[in-house]
Amino acid sequence: MSSEKPIRFGVLGCANIARKVSRAIRLAPNAALQAVGSRTREKASAFAAENGFPESAKIYGSYEAVLDDPDVDAVYVPLPTSLHAKWAVLAAQKKKHLLLEKPVALNAAELDTILAACESNGVQYMDATMWMHHPRTALMKQFLSDPHRFGQLKSVHSVFSYCPGEEFLRNDIRVKPDLDALGALGDTGWYCIRAILWANDYELPKTVTALREPEYNEAGVILSCAASLSWADSRIATFYCSFLTNLTMDISCAGAKGNLRVHDFVIPFREKAAKFYGASNSTFSTLALGCEPEPSEHAVETDLPQEALMVAEFARLAGSIERDGSKPEKKWGSISRKTQLVVDAVKASIERGFEPVEVVN
Amino acid sequence: MSSEKPIRFGVLGCANIARKVSRAIRLAPNAALQAVGSRTREKASAFAAENGFPESAKIYGSYEAVLDDPDVDAVYVPLPTSLHAKWAVLAAQKKKHLLLEKPVALNAAELDTILAACESNGVQYMDATMWMHHPRTALMKQFLSDPHRFGQLKSVHSVFSYCPGEEFLRNDIRVKPDLDALGALGDTGWYCIRAILWANDYELPKTVTALREPEYNEAGVILSCAASLSWADSRIATFYCSFLTNLTMDISCAGAKGNLRVHDFVIPFREKAAKFYGASNSTFSTLALGCEPEPSEHAVETDLPQEALMVAEFARLAGSIERDGSKPEKKWGSISRKTQLVVDAVKASIERGFEPVEVVN
Repeated sequence: MSSEKPIRFGVLGCANIARKVSRAIRLAPNAALQAVGSRTREKASAFAAENGFPESAKIYGSYEAVLDDPDVDAVYVPLPTSLHAKWAVLAAQKKKHLLLEKPVALNAAELDTILAACESNGVQYMDATMWMHHPRTALMKQFLSDPHRFGQLKSVHSVFSYCPGEEFLRNDIRVKPDLDALGALGDTGWYCIRAILWANDYELPKTVTALREPEYNEAGVILSCAASLSWADSRIATFYCSFLTNLTMDISCAGAKGNLRVHDFVIPFREKAAKFYGASNSTFSTLALGCEPEPSEHAVETDLPQEALMVAEFARLAGSIERDGSKPEKKWGSISRKTQLVVDAVKASIERGFEPVEVVN
Repeated sequence: MSSEKPIRFGVLGCANIARKVSRAIRLAPNAALQAVGSRTREKASAFAAENGFPESAKIYGSYEAVLDDPDVDAVYVPLPTSLHAKWAVLAAQKKKHLLLEKPVALNAAELDTILAACESNGVQYMDATMWMHHPRTALMKQFLSDPHRFGQLKSVHSVFSYCPGEEFLRNDIRVKPDLDALGALGDTGWYCIRAILWANDYELPKTVTALREPEYNEAGVILSCAASLSWADSRIATFYCSFLTNLTMDISCAGAKGNLRVHDFVIPFREKAAKFYGASNSTFSTLALGCEPEPSEHAVETDLPQEALMVAEFARLAGSIERDGSKPEKKWGSISRKTQLVVDAVKASIERGFEPVEVVN
């Protein structure tokens, strides 16, 4: 793979998360940092210097200039969500493959515009949900799919919260109604919903009902919320997402025959090794004086961190289109869209006084 | 304590769970097995022989006879829930202290009759929720109450499920509408709800909403269900209970500054040592390449199993009434009643098409 020409990335904007993804582009064997654009050339230049861009990288004082650079194959877009529709569509029209930060759009209609632009321009789309690409995720899925160790999925609970503090709660784009209007639901809730859909093989729930008493800031942006999801066959799921709660990154799945638990699904505690916990066919001992088995630890090592594996997979798909004329992989757009549909349903349920909302694809 | 005269227990009925509690009465230093009554003398006799009753123990062919035995100070009542109101009230009237198996009643009105009988007859009431008495539970509560390690409680999720198989699902009292009409909600849901109330210092939620698509047997008894609970200050909780899902016994609490997790809260994996997991003030590392701390394990040892500690505490309270003329401890009735109120609210929400139900004390 590394002997082939790498996919050359342009980065739109100097968001904090772009530092982590720029490092990932450096680490991925089939990707290269080609350009960065910001609203000022100075900011872009400083970002490039601080984040290991090569001497040859182009520094631009606008996003347009990155999209107009013929040596840029793909763009990573970590702009505020309210700017996604404009810049993602423009990127696709300029034939740039699109790695789009989450939340990908303010609603599914906006995302549909983005996906349509990617499709009509033949470029690859992927949202930047890093944990999807950790090898642990594939192993956990194997466990969930095992009829003997896990059996039929019955219940999922996911939590992603962190407590970023006063400065964030005053000034971060994620609490500004004109920038990231979905607040904690779009940021941390995105991961919770993705985890639930992932565990359910991306089968959409029938009904989504938000829990009462979300927390808001003065501008009306959600700082914490929760919801329940139901499927027609009695599968259920619940999640809690928050900017006001200690860093928590849990998925707990209960099946007819087993359990899976992970406590750092979004970002593993350690970069090169990650754990999850499984238990199967658990029973009470005689007189129910105890039970077994205790959950067993499964450790998964990875040379490349999950964000570099994400970049590598995205670059592999983009490279296949560029070199071999392959069709874009539609899976990532489909998963993204389902996640957004559930985000939208939670928001609608909150707006309708916590009424149940039917999820329609 | 053990030099004082032990509280002499009569056991009403030969339920499976009575084997475990009879052992606990033997293990508790301030309790003794005095009598057992069943619908036939033969059954009672076999039960006594199999469960370590002393030679001197009385064997009765009816429940009434146990209640009429002047040497019985207290009774343990593991009868089907539909029989609780009759036998618990009669026991109190006969001045027997009452250790009542859960679910304690079919609804709060029934429980109120039982509690009123205990109060007017000056006898101690306690429900047989064993895990309340494990020393781990007190240590976990210390952790949850710590403003530095845990902070304000934000979210609780609890699960108790097990998968007892076909024979149970056909014939156990817990799936019979005339015996234990609350099904999995009364059996495993009781523990989930108690865990949520325990974490919330027994403050009742404002609203309870059942999740859609519970599972029922042909007689209409609940085999699995779930619900969400909301407090006015944005605290939330969710639970899932089931007879159709692998044995799971989880409490996960998220606070502003910490997390607590336990995976065997109902019955510890091992009788003499139990674990829980805490994390405090968790943060992302630089560039969010990882996070820390990993949850740390807290191990708690106990010489006596939790059910023997339950019997010992109940016998201590009963003994204090018998010997010193103390008043009964009302805490246990109050906790029981709040648990029942939430059970009732979940049931009401299911019956009203999953509408939110206000919880009124």
